[in-house]
Amino acid sequence: MTHGIPAYTTDDCIAALATAWGRSALAIIRASGQGSVERLAPAFSRPEKLRAARETELLHGLIRDPASGEAVDEVMLSVFRDGAGYTGEEAFEIYCHGSLPGIRRILELLGGLGFRQAQPGEFTYRAFCNGKMDLTRAEAVEEIIAARTGKAHCLALHRLAGGVERRINEAKTLLAETLAGIEIRLDYPEEDAPDSAPDSPLSSSPARAEEILDRLLASYTEGRLYQEGVRVALAGRPNAGKSSLFNLFLKEERSIVCEEPGTTRDYIEALIPLAGIPVKLYDTAGLRSPDGPAEAEGVRRSRLLLDSADLVLYLVDASQADGFRMSAADGENIRRLGVRGLAVWNKIDAAPRLPAGRGCAGGLPGISARTGEGIPELLSALEKRLAPRQALSGDEPLTGSLRQRDLLEKSLTAIRRFRSREEKYPLDILAEDIREALSALGEITGEVTTEEMLALMFSRFCVGK
Amino acid sequence: MTHGIPAYTTDDCIAALATAWGRSALAIIRASGQGSVERLAPAFSRPEKLRAARETELLHGLIRDPASGEAVDEVMLSVFRDGAGYTGEEAFEIYCHGSLPGIRRILELLGGLGFRQAQPGEFTYRAFCNGKMDLTRAEAVEEIIAARTGKAHCLALHRLAGGVERRINEAKTLLAETLAGIEIRLDYPEEDAPDSAPDSPLSSSPARAEEILDRLLASYTEGRLYQEGVRVALAGRPNAGKSSLFNLFLKEERSIVCEEPGTTRDYIEALIPLAGIPVKLYDTAGLRSPDGPAEAEGVRRSRLLLDSADLVLYLVDASQADGFRMSAADGENIRRLGVRGLAVWNKIDAAPRLPAGRGCAGGLPGISARTGEGIPELLSALEKRLAPRQALSGDEPLTGSLRQRDLLEKSLTAIRRFRSREEKYPLDILAEDIREALSALGEITGEVTTEEMLALMFSRFCVGK
Repeated sequence: MTHGIPAYTTDDCIAALATAWGRSALAIIRASGQGSVERLAPAFSRPEKLRAARETELLHGLIRDPASGEAVDEVMLSVFRDGAGYTGEEAFEIYCHGSLPGIRRILELLGGLGFRQAQPGEFTYRAFCNGKMDLTRAEAVEEIIAARTGKAHCLALHRLAGGVERRINEAKTLLAETLAGIEIRLDYPEEDAPDSAPDSPLSSSPARAEEILDRLLASYTEGRLYQEGVRVALAGRPNAGKSSLFNLFLKEERSIVCEEPGTTRDYIEALIPLAGIPVKLYDTAGLRSPDGPAEAEGVRRSRLLLDSADLVLYLVDASQADGFRMSAADGENIRRLGVRGLAVWNKIDAAPRLPAGRGCAGGLPGISARTGEGIPELLSALEKRLAPRQALSGDEPLTGSLRQRDLLEKSLTAIRRFRSREEKYPLDILAEDIREALSALGEITGEVTTEEMLALMFSRFCVGK
Repeated sequence: MTHGIPAYTTDDCIAALATAWGRSALAIIRASGQGSVERLAPAFSRPEKLRAARETELLHGLIRDPASGEAVDEVMLSVFRDGAGYTGEEAFEIYCHGSLPGIRRILELLGGLGFRQAQPGEFTYRAFCNGKMDLTRAEAVEEIIAARTGKAHCLALHRLAGGVERRINEAKTLLAETLAGIEIRLDYPEEDAPDSAPDSPLSSSPARAEEILDRLLASYTEGRLYQEGVRVALAGRPNAGKSSLFNLFLKEERSIVCEEPGTTRDYIEALIPLAGIPVKLYDTAGLRSPDGPAEAEGVRRSRLLLDSADLVLYLVDASQADGFRMSAADGENIRRLGVRGLAVWNKIDAAPRLPAGRGCAGGLPGISARTGEGIPELLSALEKRLAPRQALSGDEPLTGSLRQRDLLEKSLTAIRRFRSREEKYPLDILAEDIREALSALGEITGEVTTEEMLALMFSRFCVGK
């Protein structure tokens, strides 16, 4: 996947693997573009059937190398005519075996037939260009795929169904009404236009638009949380039991757990869902003076990670602590983490001096990664720290797109400017504010776009979408 | 995936993800079983369309939670009636978004509708039970998916097309003729049965059968090579440049390369195709006295790996060698590897004493993992060592299945026994030999089977096939 901004074109044929790259029973190769079916025909064992295929018809046959006649795979195939498929242009999908060399051969063969490897998001870009979806829905497509919890997936599906688009359109209608009202007054300055008393405030519609957009904007932080999740790093001095806790969370042995300090040299990451929020958990190298260059590199990367984590779960080794008074080094590390830190005693099973039934000493909760004691309490503490402040209702559309947030802010700024100077400024200047607000909303849904913005947006998609 | 032998049933509905598990544009969930379409109907937004769906028709709609009515995904769906689909029974496929929580939700929902999670190979098992394919083709399905090079994929595709089955059937026909001849002589011992002179040898047909089966058997080693590939381990003393060479082969930075000895604690593996053969390359921990328990574990695992590798590429550090005379430790290590070893000088760019233009000293080829010098020569040397002895013709069916090999051997043993005692034994005993040979061939294609054998065979498949 490229990280530069791709130059999309729409007058050629594109193809890409649309399913995950991996050995599996089946895979889907997707292609789109004017004339794509005719291009494929010489490589399909039943070219006439292919050409005559009805919309929504599945064909069975062989993909063949047109040069040698050699069979490449036995497949099912579906054809989409203009306007019907995902991209809204002539397209087909090949349902083939999930064999890695087989997929590679089909893609190479399509390359030989003039199909260009699709860039990330290029199919959805074409869907947008062909009027199949507005930009908020196009973004929802990628958010559905990228969702890492059921909650995030459900929210993105609402957006795909047009929840955000509907709210934006409501606000647009209100602003367009306002603009029409202003223009009537500009055209007939001396007259009483019917149904528009000159002293009736223009701002009731903008006020309602502001309210709608404000609610959408407020949903951004939450939407982001469910989409992107949070980064939680495990930290603590060597041998505090970070890898053991990491493995306990994962319920499988993923990181090497070893008695020797300095075993985890690089960090290891894993995804665990907590209350519908995707939590990326990082097991870091122990924080201590490194022994050599490789370990020094591990400690350096760990520090970078700790600096960028949303929350740091800091483990203090209770078995080493003197009567649950932690060492100066631990105290200093915890102090440095500040509000992002959550410190716990680990190994309370090996610390007999802990008063029974308390699980808490020095103000910190106690856990044992070995026995599992205190883990449910730790999980609820984590959930409480990570969950969004306001409860979500399923119906409320949430935007999690940075692009949409910036444009919502731009639109709101213009609306607020309008409202603040409504009584003081001439109508033609006020009209400009409304036009600016409308233009920002038009950019959100994609009526007003620039090539660069589109390329930037779609390039974040995965290949095959 | 379970490694036990599953107990397959065929009277219920099964479902599984058929594409690779990963975030992607699309995914396929496959389901099969009598009544499966009716079971799905309440969860599809257009139940009547679904019930009336034509064979090979694609439907567009929503998957919905039948309890809450909540949309779970927007999908395409295809229905297969009795006899038409992969399994040969009523079935459907859901083409959904490649969202991990979305896939999970659909599978859970199907679970609620009475679909059991399919076991590995269960769809192909049903295809076999319903007479859609014989066992050699069923095995080819899994071999296609498991293929790791284009060559292996191409060979498996030939098997799916029935290449092995045809040869087996040719041999079966020959043996059946022989058996018929014997039975005629048993029934009419005194008569001259027409077209069967008593002194005509019975063994010309078995001899031809033997030839066919012999050729199939001979193809086993090669078939295995392309399917399973070979294991090549990189070895050498610490800092001999194993990780650098590994990365050069991979053309990307996958293993940590570091100046400090003992950096690669565990082994790292990667797959590279060499002349169509999948080569598993292993970067091992340096062979030296370990510093601590974690490193000792790494060295222990490396030794196990070196013992099981098909070839060990042993690097000697030319920059440390005194006039290209290697250390006693290197010499001993190479001697121990025996015929499985291939030793080369590495870092020849840092060894100015190497006579220019030779690249060879002490009988070993010279390379530089840093500059790439000598790498093309090393690759051809590797290819020469790994390639099968006889060249492959594309038309020759190759069996790579251990099950098929064992049964081929069993059949051949019986045929050879028949031929060795043809003149000496009574006809009814000879008939037993032929029946034994036929029975083994019947097991290969699946006419003669046991439940346990079938379960064992299909359980090696991946889920969704």
